[in-house]
Amino acid sequence: MIFRQLFDRESCTYTYLLGDPSVGRAALVDTVREHVGRDLGLLEELGLKLGAVLETHVHADHVTGAGELRRRTGATCHVPRLGGAPCADVPLGDGDVVRVGEIALHVLATPGHTSGCVSYLVSWGDAAADRVLTGDALLVRGCGRTDFQEGDAGTLWDSVHTRLFTLPDATRVYPAHDYKGMSVSTIGEEKRHNPRLGGARTRPEFIELMAALDLPAPAKIAEALPANRACGDAGTGPDTGPERM
Amino acid sequence: MIFRQLFDRESCTYTYLLGDPSVGRAALVDTVREHVGRDLGLLEELGLKLGAVLETHVHADHVTGAGELRRRTGATCHVPRLGGAPCADVPLGDGDVVRVGEIALHVLATPGHTSGCVSYLVSWGDAAADRVLTGDALLVRGCGRTDFQEGDAGTLWDSVHTRLFTLPDATRVYPAHDYKGMSVSTIGEEKRHNPRLGGARTRPEFIELMAALDLPAPAKIAEALPANRACGDAGTGPDTGPERM
Repeated sequence: MIFRQLFDRESCTYTYLLGDPSVGRAALVDTVREHVGRDLGLLEELGLKLGAVLETHVHADHVTGAGELRRRTGATCHVPRLGGAPCADVPLGDGDVVRVGEIALHVLATPGHTSGCVSYLVSWGDAAADRVLTGDALLVRGCGRTDFQEGDAGTLWDSVHTRLFTLPDATRVYPAHDYKGMSVSTIGEEKRHNPRLGGARTRPEFIELMAALDLPAPAKIAEALPANRACGDAGTGPDTGPERM
Repeated sequence: MIFRQLFDRESCTYTYLLGDPSVGRAALVDTVREHVGRDLGLLEELGLKLGAVLETHVHADHVTGAGELRRRTGATCHVPRLGGAPCADVPLGDGDVVRVGEIALHVLATPGHTSGCVSYLVSWGDAAADRVLTGDALLVRGCGRTDFQEGDAGTLWDSVHTRLFTLPDATRVYPAHDYKGMSVSTIGEEKRHNPRLGGARTRPEFIELMAALDLPAPAKIAEALPANRACGDAGTGPDTGPERM
């Protein structure tokens, strides 16, 4: 399997490319509209045709490249059913599996950051799944905020503890963001060392901690939410209409 | 082997952590002084004691954390012999090998960005080397500039073509920097797609291209070069003297 972690410095978003070279097909997870050109260039150089574009949730901090990638490649857009994104070609729910060649992305519902958040447990052929793309549910030594988009701290705690921390300790954790230069973790590490969700933390402590964060709204939320409900094909952006000409 | 790629958003520098959990020892390559706390925290959480801090070269764009890491952990500083860094505990030259548990970092002289640049070819136990830390000699679809620190485009071309492009195509390439959100490549990819050094490019074309870049000086060069010749223990910084108190 070809696996690439790609980064957007402005929003600190990680995009993931997963490719099966034997069939020349790939998936992209959590794309960023400003990097569509980079991502298409990389796919071409790797000899991969884009089959599927997936979101872990409807993002509030950046605009997805999904719609533009769909137009330019014919790929299908996979968005969680509960995310409020009618643009999806394939709405996803818990237990669904998206296959690209020998790659399988198993959908785990992990709500709490938003009501529609999912994680993708990734396996290759007959091998056991060895990595999970956790979106904003579980970050390296952190987690997504829970104060908008139907976020709920108790729900996030339950998602992480019942769906993610129950995976094998060696499972690699690839998050949708990192703000400190960390690229990857493991389930075992997060169970031991995540300062919000791991170690000796309790559910009530976590709910109290999240309620006290008092974060400013994401800078792009007013643009990003409506744009992402349309798979990125709305709002200001590279190719959305005459107002940008 | 534990392998972690860490990032500094300001200078777009990648730091690499390589650890052997069976002996609880680790090496760090190309650290950034501002992230010493992050890196020590990660080592502690992973149960690893720092044995060696290595540089691919004397950096001009950021200050290394090597000296501070040495003071705080007792690790030894490994710096290329030709880099002009008398602070090194172990000056390195082509063919040297730094061992940390089952991990071996084989030194390849790859001058051209600076006269002292090296790459580290990494192997684990008896397995063949499968990744190379290329510093600024070879970046993902790019390379380091050649207009200061005894940089020389012809020398860089020769280094990349005789020491790196002769490695197996599947060897993973981990650079010291990336400015576009790319994290890793392979030797085969760079041979085919590096727009400066790969494909149909010729040595004279490369020399001409590098001479025409006309780049501004790195913002931190006046501070970084003297500081890095002292392994980071000079110039302004977190703990260098009363002027910062």
